[in-house]
Amino acid sequence: MIDIPQQLDVIRRGSEEIVVEKELVAKLEKGRPLRVKTGFDPTAPDLHLGHTVVINKMRHFQELGHHIMFLIGDFTGLIGDPTGRNVTRKPLTDEQLKDNAHTYREQVFKILDPDKTQICFNSAWVQPLGAVGMVKLAAQHTVARMLERDDFEKRYRDGQPIAIHELLYPLCQAYDSVVMKADVELGGTDQKFNLLVGRRLQESYGQEPQIALTMPILEGLDGAQKMSKSLGNYVGITDPPQDMFGKLMRVSDELMWRYLELLSACGQGTLAKWRQEVEEGANPRDIKFRMAAEQVARFHSAKAAEDAKAAFIAQFRENRIPGDVKPHPLRTDGAGIVLANAIKEVGLTVSTSEARRMVTQGGVRIDGEKAVDASLLLEAGFDAVIQVGKRRFAHIHIID
Amino acid sequence: MIDIPQQLDVIRRGSEEIVVEKELVAKLEKGRPLRVKTGFDPTAPDLHLGHTVVINKMRHFQELGHHIMFLIGDFTGLIGDPTGRNVTRKPLTDEQLKDNAHTYREQVFKILDPDKTQICFNSAWVQPLGAVGMVKLAAQHTVARMLERDDFEKRYRDGQPIAIHELLYPLCQAYDSVVMKADVELGGTDQKFNLLVGRRLQESYGQEPQIALTMPILEGLDGAQKMSKSLGNYVGITDPPQDMFGKLMRVSDELMWRYLELLSACGQGTLAKWRQEVEEGANPRDIKFRMAAEQVARFHSAKAAEDAKAAFIAQFRENRIPGDVKPHPLRTDGAGIVLANAIKEVGLTVSTSEARRMVTQGGVRIDGEKAVDASLLLEAGFDAVIQVGKRRFAHIHIID
Repeated sequence: MIDIPQQLDVIRRGSEEIVVEKELVAKLEKGRPLRVKTGFDPTAPDLHLGHTVVINKMRHFQELGHHIMFLIGDFTGLIGDPTGRNVTRKPLTDEQLKDNAHTYREQVFKILDPDKTQICFNSAWVQPLGAVGMVKLAAQHTVARMLERDDFEKRYRDGQPIAIHELLYPLCQAYDSVVMKADVELGGTDQKFNLLVGRRLQESYGQEPQIALTMPILEGLDGAQKMSKSLGNYVGITDPPQDMFGKLMRVSDELMWRYLELLSACGQGTLAKWRQEVEEGANPRDIKFRMAAEQVARFHSAKAAEDAKAAFIAQFRENRIPGDVKPHPLRTDGAGIVLANAIKEVGLTVSTSEARRMVTQGGVRIDGEKAVDASLLLEAGFDAVIQVGKRRFAHIHIID
Repeated sequence: MIDIPQQLDVIRRGSEEIVVEKELVAKLEKGRPLRVKTGFDPTAPDLHLGHTVVINKMRHFQELGHHIMFLIGDFTGLIGDPTGRNVTRKPLTDEQLKDNAHTYREQVFKILDPDKTQICFNSAWVQPLGAVGMVKLAAQHTVARMLERDDFEKRYRDGQPIAIHELLYPLCQAYDSVVMKADVELGGTDQKFNLLVGRRLQESYGQEPQIALTMPILEGLDGAQKMSKSLGNYVGITDPPQDMFGKLMRVSDELMWRYLELLSACGQGTLAKWRQEVEEGANPRDIKFRMAAEQVARFHSAKAAEDAKAAFIAQFRENRIPGDVKPHPLRTDGAGIVLANAIKEVGLTVSTSEARRMVTQGGVRIDGEKAVDASLLLEAGFDAVIQVGKRRFAHIHIID
């Protein structure tokens, strides 16, 4: 194992908070591989790059020689989502759980080493607790401490219902840490409270508390809101190579550095060198090519990355889309917006009728493709560069 | 079955609240026996008369031909009491649970007809819920509605810890109502919230909600605070006949009518007649004799009641203890008080030294027995008439 200051350097990279770093050092000083836990929701195995921030951190630990445990919280899946009043979601079947686990594996093993990753299912130990064990577990925490969690506190104050079982989930996942004897648990910043419940519960079971390491929530392509499917500002890790490449090429230079820090397997030395090159006058676009190519290569193949890059350059040359068009988010409150109106809205033309005329004359392109219908409805999730005439460009992105 | 107005008359006797009486009438109108549930704590089967208030109400229902279900909440016993931070009480063993159930049976079948009483244990259906079922059950209620319960609300406001499993108990007992298909649930006024949770849960399981019938908490012998072991103002149903008889003879005339209403198997017609007799000049003491005798006969035997009465009269005559000595509660904050000090404290002598002298001279009696030691320590629970000389009496009752 490499020495502790170097390990800390890697572990700290991109992280939001380490509770408690001093304890982490003490654990590292023991010289044995740490047991590193990360929990995943079994219901939505369709990942986007935002999810991979934590997986990249798992990879860092793996590269440092620690023991990585990928926990699928399938106990939740067995319950279904009982929160809704009228619509009770059906529990997942064994078949569905198996399928989801398979999808997870396929996706995360593009980042993690499958031979060194332990996959766990928490139903294996939460179910055997039985009704008695569940009540005993519930006895380990107080209502007040649970309501300290930001979202609970806000909902309670606002009179929004919190069902009692919602207080049990953080305890179940804390119990996972006890059973798994986790030294470290990773999660997004939104998981901090849960990770701390894990610390407390381990203590009441006589264990040394785990280190809670939180990673930031990744910004979406707009650089503003968090990456999310419903906001349409995401890169799915199963997106086709050209889409993935194109989307990543359109992020701002600033966001590029952020993505590199949180998503790239490049060492910190390499990143520092690139930063210096750019400061000394290199074109950030060349770094962006490397960033986009790395992600495509990771989730598809090196060949796919090369092809995507070539296609991107060809399209770029043909359409002369400038590389630095800023995204222009439009809110339509679910209604969508007609192409001609959108063109006017973002100022590519002064009127809707001019926009319509331009479309009719073949002077409007969407991501380089000639637009034929001025009445085309652009709906939430629409995300493309629109070109009017030779020089007017706007990167339109429709938010619901 | 007798007609509904007459049934309502019996059901209402002594009750505090019926939620909702109109629904009760609708249930009675169906003409089938109602399923009447009462839950008991499995950990403390040692009953006093206060506990029998609810059991008497069960008897009323039984006499009206309804189906009585005596529920022992042994699921709780399987868990132990996990509330304490340091001291976790051990779960009851099967043996202990069986013993406690046996004790319960022995005690309550002095009031209820054993052939017409169904005894249930809720572990039979709560345990099979498993961890998944327990979480689903917890999903049926919100934290806010649970914290509306008076004691929870107060504790939460005062920053006193409420462990999360405490929110599960009311749901478990509400689930009992679902499984038992209860038409009516009986309980003390302190159980009202829990009985209402039962109503809600039955509704969400598609059942007609049970009627929640609450009975008042019985006052202790002092007529002021609730009857309780720790306050020392109780009559245990296993108390020896003479103790039971003596304690009941010392209650005030007012409290006597209360006890008759809540504890006596005498019909309301009989009680009305007695009231009238007293109004017309009869000595309430004669009614008190009947009340005391009935309770002794119920928990011991008719013969024991006769003997106790005879002994009481003999002692009364011998010592000329007036029948109407008012109880004089003394608080000693756990330290107890020396006999001579107590005598002075309640004003039987003007000084402690006079009290000591009276004891030495054989002029002090405790419940008719000559006192020999002026330094005798009277501790919490002490409850007796102290006589100094021929005419000075005080009924001293030490509260912790």
